Amino acid sequence: MSSFSAVDVIATKRDGGELSDAAIDWVVDAYTRGAVAEEQMSALAMAILLNGMGARETARWTRAMISSGDRLDLAAVGKPLADKHSTGGVGDKITLPLAPLVAACGAAVPQLSGRGLGHTGGTLDKLESIPGWRAGLDTDEIVAQLREVGAVICATTPTLAPADRKLYALRDVTGTVEAVPLIASSIMSKKIAEGTDGLVLDVKVGSGAFMKTEARARELAEALVSIGTEHGLRTVALLTAMDTPLGNTAGNALEVAESVEVLAGEGPADVVELTLLLAREMLAAVGIDPTGAADPERALADGRAMDVWRAMISAQGGDPDAALPAAREVHTVVAPTTGVLSRLDAYAVGVAAWRLGAGRARKEDPVQAAAGVVWHARPGEMVLRGQPLLDLHTDTPERIPAALEALEGGWEIGGELAVLPLVIDRISG
Amino acid sequence: MSSFSAVDVIATKRDGGELSDAAIDWVVDAYTRGAVAEEQMSALAMAILLNGMGARETARWTRAMISSGDRLDLAAVGKPLADKHSTGGVGDKITLPLAPLVAACGAAVPQLSGRGLGHTGGTLDKLESIPGWRAGLDTDEIVAQLREVGAVICATTPTLAPADRKLYALRDVTGTVEAVPLIASSIMSKKIAEGTDGLVLDVKVGSGAFMKTEARARELAEALVSIGTEHGLRTVALLTAMDTPLGNTAGNALEVAESVEVLAGEGPADVVELTLLLAREMLAAVGIDPTGAADPERALADGRAMDVWRAMISAQGGDPDAALPAAREVHTVVAPTTGVLSRLDAYAVGVAAWRLGAGRARKEDPVQAAAGVVWHARPGEMVLRGQPLLDLHTDTPERIPAALEALEGGWEIGGELAVLPLVIDRISG
Repeated sequence: MSSFSAVDVIATKRDGGELSDAAIDWVVDAYTRGAVAEEQMSALAMAILLNGMGARETARWTRAMISSGDRLDLAAVGKPLADKHSTGGVGDKITLPLAPLVAACGAAVPQLSGRGLGHTGGTLDKLESIPGWRAGLDTDEIVAQLREVGAVICATTPTLAPADRKLYALRDVTGTVEAVPLIASSIMSKKIAEGTDGLVLDVKVGSGAFMKTEARARELAEALVSIGTEHGLRTVALLTAMDTPLGNTAGNALEVAESVEVLAGEGPADVVELTLLLAREMLAAVGIDPTGAADPERALADGRAMDVWRAMISAQGGDPDAALPAAREVHTVVAPTTGVLSRLDAYAVGVAAWRLGAGRARKEDPVQAAAGVVWHARPGEMVLRGQPLLDLHTDTPERIPAALEALEGGWEIGGELAVLPLVIDRISG
Repeated sequence: MSSFSAVDVIATKRDGGELSDAAIDWVVDAYTRGAVAEEQMSALAMAILLNGMGARETARWTRAMISSGDRLDLAAVGKPLADKHSTGGVGDKITLPLAPLVAACGAAVPQLSGRGLGHTGGTLDKLESIPGWRAGLDTDEIVAQLREVGAVICATTPTLAPADRKLYALRDVTGTVEAVPLIASSIMSKKIAEGTDGLVLDVKVGSGAFMKTEARARELAEALVSIGTEHGLRTVALLTAMDTPLGNTAGNALEVAESVEVLAGEGPADVVELTLLLAREMLAAVGIDPTGAADPERALADGRAMDVWRAMISAQGGDPDAALPAAREVHTVVAPTTGVLSRLDAYAVGVAAWRLGAGRARKEDPVQAAAGVVWHARPGEMVLRGQPLLDLHTDTPERIPAALEALEGGWEIGGELAVLPLVIDRISG
């Protein structure tokens, strides 16, 4: 590998130039080894954030991040591998019903996930509210479970894109998380290293999403699809609504319970609709025709998705029949007037759930399994004066005032109804 | 002092916002204390470089850097204090004759200086070629020498703007040296903390300067004058030529010898002209009318400037009569043809002198006292085929090929003569 000067690489991007493939390979590798210092990478990350990276640079950066670690060898699974990634939202529990549903339709789903940080929940945090369930599997366990059960939701293995782990921690403390090329390469390096055949990206748009505007979400979606296509991965991205939280719950155990309702053929309409839509996209991405036995609607209705869920939870030590933790205290907010709920802000609900204990401020913080928010109406629905509107669940009641403060101005009755459509656009390579 | 989040401060500048006074005070102080990490400050420095800082922000940043340490108390000197700062160039030995000259005209000159890095020489490195001379003085010694001799050239004291020392070292390795607001606040924080009454800035323009274009040099000059004015310091900036090196020598002992020639009433015309011009500006900045006994031309002609030089060198342990070190080897480049020297590139000469041993690549490197380059003609002068054009002085002859390589294409005989005027512009508050 050629050798470069870190200052020269930084200066190239600072001055609006393009980084060569060799420069990218060098800087990512040298940073992972510690030969490029944290303060040098953060200056480069800020220059990338402000001056951008083109499609070639972003694809190469992704490749360099993949090369910093091992690729998962899932060839022994013997089934097409389909994965989904959401950029994160409030009440976004879709992975939980989706992974077993897609497995029930014939694909294998290796869903390597992360924990929550800030106002969006983490898939692993949610599943850890199930007594006995464990997130950490080694590669052999992942392969075995994909062969036997068809779906696995577990923690990212430590050797997968270590450069990404190091760089993400740096970006988090240096105001450089928001760089689209770095967000895109972070997501895609892990998915490509994981070895999936098809990938569906759920890029959230709105107050509760990382990307607040459709334009920013579209920019990210296009970068993601471009990298996937460049690496020979069948990739499609949906832009979906995150102005209003998904379903009726935000919180760890609360979202598991709602997911189980969906698998039982019930659950909130938006969660069911998005789960089915993403399932069809994932199946299509790996060449499975979503009809007959592979029709997700049928697999949901006839209980096969629930069977996979139960097997998947059991395989990782969880008891699918165990009672989920309940909060020590539930504080109810009642509707102050009768009318149509015109707005329920995803960010406000997300921050409230976070403050109640469902999320963490720093990655070493614990989370409360039972904490969170339940809402009894969605925008467009009628509420009656004095009836429960929101339930705040927590084991630490002293946090309720802070959660109520977060919710102030976060919902409205009788105003103008203005919500995003559930699916805003679809972007493919 | 208010408390801020480093990420929020970075994000404000990243997104093109203005930093509040309180945010600037906090981030500079917290960085100096180590509460803001190096990687956070480098991301902020890159955001400042790319998104800029306004006059108010730059003045406040400077004030915060001054507050990171002590101010020098020079009240006991009892004379008006005049200082000069050059942004650095090749053959720029002006400080050496200038400080004693201005002192001979009645001002006190506290010239706290740095060492060279890269292709430009450092004033302290030059003076250290005088046997016995020492750069390190404490505040009492500085005050005593200013009272008794009138001029002091010494190292910056450790408690003067420590934030600047830390930040400069960081910018050096993170590609963020080039940020004009940070360059300006770095220069001015030290000069203001030093306590001078008047300040003349020599902002160099051209290949051998830090600012290669007049536009960039003007931007820096305006930022410097703005900060000085804001802090009640009489400040004027000259934009001067650095496309061609100053005088006829670049190197440590070589430049001391040339400076002594100037003090003896001889020396190259451009060095004499710039020295006199800057002396008049420094005197005017502290309200001394540069006529009669305070006329620099007279103080140079009648030997008073030389007397101050000798006293100044002696006061710091140096022997003004000692022979200066001579190089072990001198390699001469002869003119290949007869004609007018049309170009002598300052950067090429600076890099050659550096490679011969006059400069350092890293701040811990030693320098050779005797190494450097002497040129026998300046652009516009006739050279004769076979006559010496350049002498390369070094104690390490193995470096001569690298110096010759640096000089390739760096001079021309018989081309179009295109040189900058010595003084390009004058900018005052």
